[in-house]
Amino acid sequence: MKIEEKIVRKLMYDNDAFSQWLGIEIISVEKGAVELSMTVREEMTNGFDIAHGGIAFSLADSALAFSSNTHGIQSVTVETTTSFIKAINTGDRIHARSKEIQLSGKFGRYLIEMHNQNGVLVAVFYGTVFRTGKSWIV
Amino acid sequence: MKIEEKIVRKLMYDNDAFSQWLGIEIISVEKGAVELSMTVREEMTNGFDIAHGGIAFSLADSALAFSSNTHGIQSVTVETTTSFIKAINTGDRIHARSKEIQLSGKFGRYLIEMHNQNGVLVAVFYGTVFRTGKSWIV
Amino acid sequence: MKIEEKIVRKLMYDNDAFSQWLGIEIISVEKGAVELSMTVREEMTNGFDIAHGGIAFSLADSALAFSSNTHGIQSVTVETTTSFIKAINTGDRIHARSKEIQLSGKFGRYLIEMHNQNGVLVAVFYGTVFRTGKSWIV
Amino acid sequence: MKIEEKIVRKLMYDNDAFSQWLGIEIISVEKGAVELSMTVREEMTNGFDIAHGGIAFSLADSALAFSSNTHGIQSVTVETTTSFIKAINTGDRIHARSKEIQLSGKFGRYLIEMHNQNGVLVAVFYGTVFRTGKSWIV
Repeated sequence: MKIEEKIVRKLMYDNDAFSQWLGIEIISVEKGAVELSMTVREEMTNGFDIAHGGIAFSLADSALAFSSNTHGIQSVTVETTTSFIKAINTGDRIHARSKEIQLSGKFGRYLIEMHNQNGVLVAVFYGTVFRTGKSWIV
Repeated sequence: MKIEEKIVRKLMYDNDAFSQWLGIEIISVEKGAVELSMTVREEMTNGFDIAHGGIAFSLADSALAFSSNTHGIQSVTVETTTSFIKAINTGDRIHARSKEIQLSGKFGRYLIEMHNQNGVLVAVFYGTVFRTGKSWIV
Repeated sequence: MKIEEKIVRKLMYDNDAFSQWLGIEIISVEKGAVELSMTVREEMTNGFDIAHGGIAFSLADSALAFSSNTHGIQSVTVETTTSFIKAINTGDRIHARSKEIQLSGKFGRYLIEMHNQNGVLVAVFYGTVFRTGKSWIV
Repeated sequence: MKIEEKIVRKLMYDNDAFSQWLGIEIISVEKGAVELSMTVREEMTNGFDIAHGGIAFSLADSALAFSSNTHGIQSVTVETTTSFIKAINTGDRIHARSKEIQLSGKFGRYLIEMHNQNGVLVAVFYGTVFRTGKSWIV
């Protein structure tokens, strides 16, 4: 198992109770990028009977955390921007793909696009992490 | 019960499975502003053993939805910005208070500050809603 | 001249006094995307003797306006997020390239990356426009 | 002259060519907060014959820089979010008032609201600075 995969799968996801509650599946892990997927359940909906905004956000925030920590430096979210584009329904399968826009000593920026099972873009997330300087012990 | 309270408590919260899963308590509802509170549980934590970013976001997104719908016009989140300031731990009680920054025909903007039980600011959320023009039938 | 180019060059840029003051050069115009370039002058710097944040923002905001209006529908900026990554100095040539992330009836989202003459990413801009429904008369 | 005023007026504004070009007037300076004002000129407009988005942004970004540097630690903008609410016309006098939302060792967050001469909210800016640790020599 590659180091970045060990960090994401063993050190992060296996201890990440909320990502597990969401039912997040890790499709792929590369340096600076991950692909995640999850299915929206009834208990994740809001008063409009669509997925609560927190669900797409949480999927993306996990993708941000996983992507930015693949480099072996512990990184924490400082700022995020999220656009909500299309309603997500119960039973929808959401696929999140991250892209590393920028990485330097102190900061990293990532764009995460989320599509449903029909390939429709449902939400976009742009996030900035602060790199603490502390290394993961793999 | 005031109309804004009926919208938030009966039409929104009572049908909002995820806000209920989070354990959100509605402290107060005014036109354009709400106060919410919730306690972080073990199952809401991430691989750093602190609350997943999606938890504070979800609390704030509920506050945004509730605040912006108090005016009787169905309003949906389009853009959000969230700053993560201090780690939130299991057992922490998070209190969210919203403030209506701007309201016009099509859009509304809200600032939501979140403090923990010690009065420490842990996260800030700034959100924009689109007002659909469709009225709530109260 | 293609319609999108006529909108951007004749109807927008030729009447855009501030983009002209900035010295913005239009490199290319496609549906949903433009490339712009400009050189930072001494009068655009701040108290740290680097380009004022408003300069990179303004270049990107012009790119957003131009990109989103290429479809023939008048579109106005509603929300923007900008990351400042590297200092920009007097004499630097900044190149902005936009990408259409999403376009639907009411909204469009665009990512704009800005590089300096050495190919270094200096700023990233993510913007949302509201499509007014009013057409450009070309 | 108080230290925060000396930093803003003498060390920052007096060397800030672009804020001067904008015609920014410093109304007041307190620790963590400033009030600025400026009048929109013809050369600041865009192809819609209203103030270019970069103008309100630049005013706010100066307010962010001034506010965050009042504490004596050199602070630089990392992330900003700006909402454009009402069109700003030539001749309008724009007044920006900043509020310090949060300040800690590494980061500060500020909300800046901009009103026109009729008291109408025209734009809102939310910005995050990184505190470099380098002190101003006053």
